[in-house]
Amino acid sequence: MMALKPEPAFCLGALKVPISLHDTNRKRLYRRLKENAAVGAGAIVVLQGGEETNRYCTDTALVFRQESYFHWCFGVLEPGFYGAIDVDSGKTILFCPRLPEAYTVWMGTILPKSHFKEKYAVDEVCYVDEISDVLEAMKPAMLLTLRGVNTDSGSTCQEAVFEGVHKFKVNNILLHPEIMECRVIKTPQELEVLRYTNQVSSEAHKEIMRKIRPGMKEYEMESLFQHYCYSKGGCRHTSYTCICGSGKNGAVLHYGHAGAPNDKVINDGDMCLFDLGGEYYCYASDITCSFPVNGKFTDDQKIIYQAVYDASRAVMKEVKPGVCWVDMHRLAEHTILEALKQHGLVQGDIDGMVEANIGALFMPHGLGHFMGLDVHDVGGYPEGTERMKKPGLKSLRTVRPLQAGMVFTIEPGCYFIQEVLQKAFSNEIQAPFLCQEQIRRFMNFGGVRIEDDIVVTSDGMELLTCVPRTINEIEAFMAKARETY
Amino acid sequence: MMALKPEPAFCLGALKVPISLHDTNRKRLYRRLKENAAVGAGAIVVLQGGEETNRYCTDTALVFRQESYFHWCFGVLEPGFYGAIDVDSGKTILFCPRLPEAYTVWMGTILPKSHFKEKYAVDEVCYVDEISDVLEAMKPAMLLTLRGVNTDSGSTCQEAVFEGVHKFKVNNILLHPEIMECRVIKTPQELEVLRYTNQVSSEAHKEIMRKIRPGMKEYEMESLFQHYCYSKGGCRHTSYTCICGSGKNGAVLHYGHAGAPNDKVINDGDMCLFDLGGEYYCYASDITCSFPVNGKFTDDQKIIYQAVYDASRAVMKEVKPGVCWVDMHRLAEHTILEALKQHGLVQGDIDGMVEANIGALFMPHGLGHFMGLDVHDVGGYPEGTERMKKPGLKSLRTVRPLQAGMVFTIEPGCYFIQEVLQKAFSNEIQAPFLCQEQIRRFMNFGGVRIEDDIVVTSDGMELLTCVPRTINEIEAFMAKARETY
Repeated sequence: MMALKPEPAFCLGALKVPISLHDTNRKRLYRRLKENAAVGAGAIVVLQGGEETNRYCTDTALVFRQESYFHWCFGVLEPGFYGAIDVDSGKTILFCPRLPEAYTVWMGTILPKSHFKEKYAVDEVCYVDEISDVLEAMKPAMLLTLRGVNTDSGSTCQEAVFEGVHKFKVNNILLHPEIMECRVIKTPQELEVLRYTNQVSSEAHKEIMRKIRPGMKEYEMESLFQHYCYSKGGCRHTSYTCICGSGKNGAVLHYGHAGAPNDKVINDGDMCLFDLGGEYYCYASDITCSFPVNGKFTDDQKIIYQAVYDASRAVMKEVKPGVCWVDMHRLAEHTILEALKQHGLVQGDIDGMVEANIGALFMPHGLGHFMGLDVHDVGGYPEGTERMKKPGLKSLRTVRPLQAGMVFTIEPGCYFIQEVLQKAFSNEIQAPFLCQEQIRRFMNFGGVRIEDDIVVTSDGMELLTCVPRTINEIEAFMAKARETY
Repeated sequence: MMALKPEPAFCLGALKVPISLHDTNRKRLYRRLKENAAVGAGAIVVLQGGEETNRYCTDTALVFRQESYFHWCFGVLEPGFYGAIDVDSGKTILFCPRLPEAYTVWMGTILPKSHFKEKYAVDEVCYVDEISDVLEAMKPAMLLTLRGVNTDSGSTCQEAVFEGVHKFKVNNILLHPEIMECRVIKTPQELEVLRYTNQVSSEAHKEIMRKIRPGMKEYEMESLFQHYCYSKGGCRHTSYTCICGSGKNGAVLHYGHAGAPNDKVINDGDMCLFDLGGEYYCYASDITCSFPVNGKFTDDQKIIYQAVYDASRAVMKEVKPGVCWVDMHRLAEHTILEALKQHGLVQGDIDGMVEANIGALFMPHGLGHFMGLDVHDVGGYPEGTERMKKPGLKSLRTVRPLQAGMVFTIEPGCYFIQEVLQKAFSNEIQAPFLCQEQIRRFMNFGGVRIEDDIVVTSDGMELLTCVPRTINEIEAFMAKARETY
């Protein structure tokens, strides 16, 4: 009897990801393309993978991370590849770079084509310099290349280019909407990876809640998060720049960039707003925990935290296929405004507040976004859909009705952004709703965001994130850690 | 009496770097330019800083790291700046981006020009969109922009471009060799930062030697290094991709990239070759430690380690101004070959071996390179100097005679690269020198590299790196850590 060869898989941390994940993806793609009348027989999808990049003009290479569409199709970890999928048969060919002899000394053994054929479980592997000849021999009616706008960045993706491409009939319109739609709905195999990234990142957030103390610096927590995710979970990258805001930095939505680099001392009494997500096998997580550095909420901190928590859970109760995401945003906003009114920070009629965009003063971002291979995953605005105009709602990264298999973040927040509130105080439509004296008490508060990742199921949702969430859970968890350390 | 304002400084970790470091750099530059007859009166240096970049077409921004020439001149931490230096007067103007209102909500308070004027201690700050008008008002005879080839990467640096540049007489030839030469010789203030990066990175290497155990994965050590340098030292970046080779991976000079991502289990009996350097305020460190994972050298490990150690120290004894770097490379190679001969791995006359390029079989890289803002720092091959042709020597990143203030790595190594040795076994010139049977014993050994950072002083050198180096020091250090953990 022959021994069964183990299925090829990616494994750096605890999760083994079978390479067949990509076979499933490709099948979904070419079956979909076959149903598209505009594609016709004899079409071949051709994608170009990412290239290694350097710091400016130096020879310092950045750690390579594959382009997301290419990863979705092929799972190739190395730079410089191309890939092709015959739409009629599903036959898949990878093209690997032909490496110079010096590669052996500097980068490692030059692996043969057979290595990649097995590793990536494709039908054939050729060299990149053979791509034109190989494709020509297949006599394709057309090549489908990827060109389209990313609706979060406004940038256009890099279409495959290779020597000899002019010899082919190339269509760069048809592929993008189809592959984007495939990425919107996650497969069970993809969900396994997303569950794992959430598990690792949740544990890393808990590690921070255990170890944080007043007097530490924000970047120490960034470092701790990254170290936990990488050393325990095999996440070499994070999904986005770590946001470790404390005190009033919590009111800066994308704090942590080079101009505001997590460099503040975390003072006793500060709220922390830590938005951190590890990435495994290019799959993202995106989790925000908000808590008091010293482990005990003040009364004011409780007011804001509970308002955001209630908004989060109100949304979660409603989520299921068919639900309108814009309605969910409004529900969260409404819940937060009700709470602020109850505690005397705003006054008047809630509907009037919504009309006057009071909600967006406190939550100027959208309720959440698709998440997958990109933290702001693609497909939010397919052709025919449009952004809304109102503050808050215009920041929504999608307005699509929910479908099973979509993965979303749910991330309501409430922030005290001094510039925004000061301006509102002198806005004659908004000012009457604002209790300035009460609000001024919170001017250095920062903010609270509660961000979980969920997948829409056939009759509701599955929560992927697992961290202490209620005020009681957080206080108990942090108290316990302070006993044992 | 007025209270003295503290001098503006960068401080994330323990080291405060006064912003006057850059004033010193600029003075050196414009005084040098004044002495250049081709420059003439009325010249203004104009540099463009780095821009933030994203992952492919997504909105996931990478953590910004300033371009090195721009950092050297101005120390600006944020993306999107320009800078100008009036060569006659030394007057320095920074141009900051005019940020949109939404920046406040997403990225933080929009800081006024006065903030940057104080933070970067320059004479004036204007907006980038004013650059053409501001420069025009200065009536420059010419603008000096930066264009030149990086001799390590072969890439050309990004010349300053802005709207209205066509209105000026621009010279992009004169600046590059002058500013490059300035960067080759480090100032006392720059040396302070390099001492610090070396100290932090040395401690991080020691932390690894304390905590490493057989059965751990290579990437856990990468993660630990990064965590130590960042959380304890404020190093958000490393100077290059972490190389954590164990066992035969130690023979891959630039192991650790995405195609060979530090993913092996470190087995009992493995030698480790960890080449890791933290970066603080854009200043690099570049340190390699080689040691047995279990803390005890075998006899074979001692042979190779001692050979490389002796080479390292033989070079250090010779280093002083005027010494020829190529001679130092030859000295290291000679020392290693002597040891290999003594232990029966090679045979015959050493001069004959050198002639037959036997040294480069075991050490296929150069002895070391300049280090500063870039790990392979600029200036290795100014106009008129040329690379040598012989294996090993041709990989030298500089052939310049030593001068006080130059910072070098000294990094002899000895590797068993299967492909290289197999080929040599059937090379009729090389084979007679090689004791194949003995060498085959080492085929899975990997390699040893000992890499220190040094600065050339007026009468010798200062060693910046501080880690256990002799066999006894390493064994004692690792044994002690194993008692206490």
